[in-house]
Amino acid sequence: MTDLSPPRSGGRAARRAARASALPDHMRPVRPGMSGGTYKPLSQTDIENIHHTALDALEQIGLADAPPSGVEILTGAGAILGDDGRIRIPRALVEDALAKAAREITLFGRDPAHDLHLSGTRVHYGTAGAAVSMVDIDGRNYRDSTLQDLFDAARIVERLDNIHFLQRPIVARDVADMLEMDYNTVYACCAGTLKHIGTSFSAPETVAPSIEMLHMIAGGEDKWRARPFMSNSNCFVVPPMKFATEACIVMEHCIAAGMPVLLLSAGMAGATAPSTVAGAIVQAVAECLAGLVYVNAIVPGHPAIFGTWPFGLDLRSGAMTGGSGEQALLTAGCAQMHQFYGIPGGAAAGISDSKLPDMQAGWEAMCSNVTAGLAGLNMVYEAAGMHASLLGFCHESLILGDDLIGQAQRCVRGIEVNEETMALDQIRDVCMGGPGHYLGTSQTLARMQSDYVYPQLGDRTSPKEWAEIGKPDLLEKAGRRKDMYLSEPSKAQFDPAVDAQIRQTFNIYLPR
Amino acid sequence: MTDLSPPRSGGRAARRAARASALPDHMRPVRPGMSGGTYKPLSQTDIENIHHTALDALEQIGLADAPPSGVEILTGAGAILGDDGRIRIPRALVEDALAKAAREITLFGRDPAHDLHLSGTRVHYGTAGAAVSMVDIDGRNYRDSTLQDLFDAARIVERLDNIHFLQRPIVARDVADMLEMDYNTVYACCAGTLKHIGTSFSAPETVAPSIEMLHMIAGGEDKWRARPFMSNSNCFVVPPMKFATEACIVMEHCIAAGMPVLLLSAGMAGATAPSTVAGAIVQAVAECLAGLVYVNAIVPGHPAIFGTWPFGLDLRSGAMTGGSGEQALLTAGCAQMHQFYGIPGGAAAGISDSKLPDMQAGWEAMCSNVTAGLAGLNMVYEAAGMHASLLGFCHESLILGDDLIGQAQRCVRGIEVNEETMALDQIRDVCMGGPGHYLGTSQTLARMQSDYVYPQLGDRTSPKEWAEIGKPDLLEKAGRRKDMYLSEPSKAQFDPAVDAQIRQTFNIYLPR
Repeated sequence: MTDLSPPRSGGRAARRAARASALPDHMRPVRPGMSGGTYKPLSQTDIENIHHTALDALEQIGLADAPPSGVEILTGAGAILGDDGRIRIPRALVEDALAKAAREITLFGRDPAHDLHLSGTRVHYGTAGAAVSMVDIDGRNYRDSTLQDLFDAARIVERLDNIHFLQRPIVARDVADMLEMDYNTVYACCAGTLKHIGTSFSAPETVAPSIEMLHMIAGGEDKWRARPFMSNSNCFVVPPMKFATEACIVMEHCIAAGMPVLLLSAGMAGATAPSTVAGAIVQAVAECLAGLVYVNAIVPGHPAIFGTWPFGLDLRSGAMTGGSGEQALLTAGCAQMHQFYGIPGGAAAGISDSKLPDMQAGWEAMCSNVTAGLAGLNMVYEAAGMHASLLGFCHESLILGDDLIGQAQRCVRGIEVNEETMALDQIRDVCMGGPGHYLGTSQTLARMQSDYVYPQLGDRTSPKEWAEIGKPDLLEKAGRRKDMYLSEPSKAQFDPAVDAQIRQTFNIYLPR
Repeated sequence: MTDLSPPRSGGRAARRAARASALPDHMRPVRPGMSGGTYKPLSQTDIENIHHTALDALEQIGLADAPPSGVEILTGAGAILGDDGRIRIPRALVEDALAKAAREITLFGRDPAHDLHLSGTRVHYGTAGAAVSMVDIDGRNYRDSTLQDLFDAARIVERLDNIHFLQRPIVARDVADMLEMDYNTVYACCAGTLKHIGTSFSAPETVAPSIEMLHMIAGGEDKWRARPFMSNSNCFVVPPMKFATEACIVMEHCIAAGMPVLLLSAGMAGATAPSTVAGAIVQAVAECLAGLVYVNAIVPGHPAIFGTWPFGLDLRSGAMTGGSGEQALLTAGCAQMHQFYGIPGGAAAGISDSKLPDMQAGWEAMCSNVTAGLAGLNMVYEAAGMHASLLGFCHESLILGDDLIGQAQRCVRGIEVNEETMALDQIRDVCMGGPGHYLGTSQTLARMQSDYVYPQLGDRTSPKEWAEIGKPDLLEKAGRRKDMYLSEPSKAQFDPAVDAQIRQTFNIYLPR
């Protein structure tokens, strides 16, 4: 039984009153970190076959193009550098790394209420990507994305309960200099949200200045290292089976700076990965295992997220797609591999190929988001706002994604079966001498907040009510919500002294 | 390996040519009756607890309001009529009925290519409902649904590969007389599609004339009885735990006429069923078990679909909702109960609460459709076209539903893991001395048709291409597709002599 005591007098007014009172966190129908795992596209045999094939790939094929430092680190740990320049990794070394690797990772928020505890099948949804365009709903236009757009995305994410982290979704194309772009990205994200942030670095030399800024924001290096609230999304491989030389060096710098890393392998099935779902998963797993060996050879147990992100391809055109059923399977299958290893992992879901937040965008984003959650993916990246197969980002769509993901999370929460929920006594009371319906029962009222997810913008009016309120348009509603969020000051703004210090040290493009 | 041999010369033109050639049925990436079952929201213990609680409900609470014939049939089989008028069903009688019940059911199409074989976790998607309005996209209007709308829906369903059956989705409100409405509904559905059809009868007296018409269409009673291509969607209960007196008599008539029945229990969680997902499933299971006892006491093994259709409710307003995460859980949980009993079953998914085919409609329809399929629901009813929590039906949305369900089916098909799909040899060839990518490999070309589902109307262009082709609107594309389908003669039209005979006997409202 819950200890929530809504009015028992029944009726619509009572229900509305009960609903209006805010719920304590533990009573919310959905929250970050609920456990999935009820959807298992791979059998245990499938999982083991994929694992062994990935080990074969590492032993027999290995990875090319490690930087000299990486060669040293990996061969020092027991990997073998071949005459062909490829580094091959024996099974024992992989098993050794798996034994050392971090199995529970906390991704900190600047506000501890937003800390994400990654383990098992706990599910978190957030943004990600490197879109180069913003979708302007009103003009049905794609335009270059800017730093202000990124800051706005961060402020919107801060307001959305079901978006649990902000990984930088767009590139600030109005900041031409690479170094300035990277640290302005850090600034814009941190100035907009207190949730955990992910970002990328364009080159090894942009890491140190960005870390310096993070120390300022944290209030010192010790505070940063105690609760690193930003992780590095690191494309450490160029599939198939090649290290991304520069990104590996970035990774080494980030590890030294105490920053969690996302080991991101983004192959495209049919182009840079095999065209089969199973083959693309094998290759992504092999690549991420190589990354895990690399990280744990530097600092055993350093927080590293197993980032198997295989993407789909439209084989007719050779262009990427992210909204397909194949994509949903790729992502869900990867989640099972993470669980097999017991290592926190992430993959991409929620992507739409549609250019606009239309019906196609809805079905595509839900398909992979709900299956990723049910598969128990720890970090669902790209979960909201992503259009045009990752080329476009849309603020209105991000806001609507909050409703969409709330619904997916309700599915992740699943079905509670116990004596109370099976409700035999209630059925008896209602049917035998009772009112013949359940509308006014105390059990119904007690469940209306804790068990049901209500959409913020999704419409549930009757056709008659809908006509009476002027047939509201979903995208217009999202636009008004966006305007409201952006008209209010950021909840994450820095202390003025800190901001002044940052602006003195760095060339910050966002206005004060 | 597949025996499909696309051109090996590679390149976009070759890929397009390979795609353009029609695939033989067994090579299609998705088809009716693929097996789901990888998503299991209920544990085995949950399932058994629900089963035993449903048995308790039948033994202790029972069902009221059986017609005199039903009382005779049920008590004759061993049920107990209480002083309170409720019929209670001992466990042994339920087990007896389960032992006799049809475990494999073929729902015939007029074209045998459309036969549906229901068993295990085989999944089929189709329409259903009793919407009273049509959604007019252009004017954003709801208007009364007509017989012509129903005929049009049938003709559209006939053209959509991923809509496997037509259960009557709308009420022909322009036919005032009950008897005329029922047989005109039969006529309009049969004149529009050769796929299996489901319909309802408003009263016992409309069954015989409709059956007479079906005999004419089939070419005689013997042909009808050999391949009954229409089933009766029968709301035999008024939840909670009351028989629908008249509908039970309709059911008796349909069984006598050799028509399969869908035992439909449509409780609303929080109103006519407990507000908890588990409680609503318990009650629906109990009610459908009572129906199964009833049917099998009349004709053992008569084809009867276990129709646990619990719906969600917005507890704030007391109005029905069909697009929620709770709805997806209700439906998926029911699918597992059908599998536990080994009895073919159906439930509702794909419903949107939105008034229009917008982003909300997309995410709502996908959420329950993909989870229902993954749960292995045999008959996914209401899967396409349904808006406003079942009050509105939309032809354009039905057409878009074909894309949406194709994607859900791709998820149902799942991940094939074997030596070929894991592609170790291919990875080796590509990485070690090979081209470094998979675009031109024979394996990639061989998979591009058999493994990948391509949307018919969903857009995958790049933003640049999209702008160049005039930024096509999804709903306009669906509208053009609808116009095309409806401009062509029905593929299911009757032989002129049969049509003349029908029109002589019945007052048919559709023009010749």
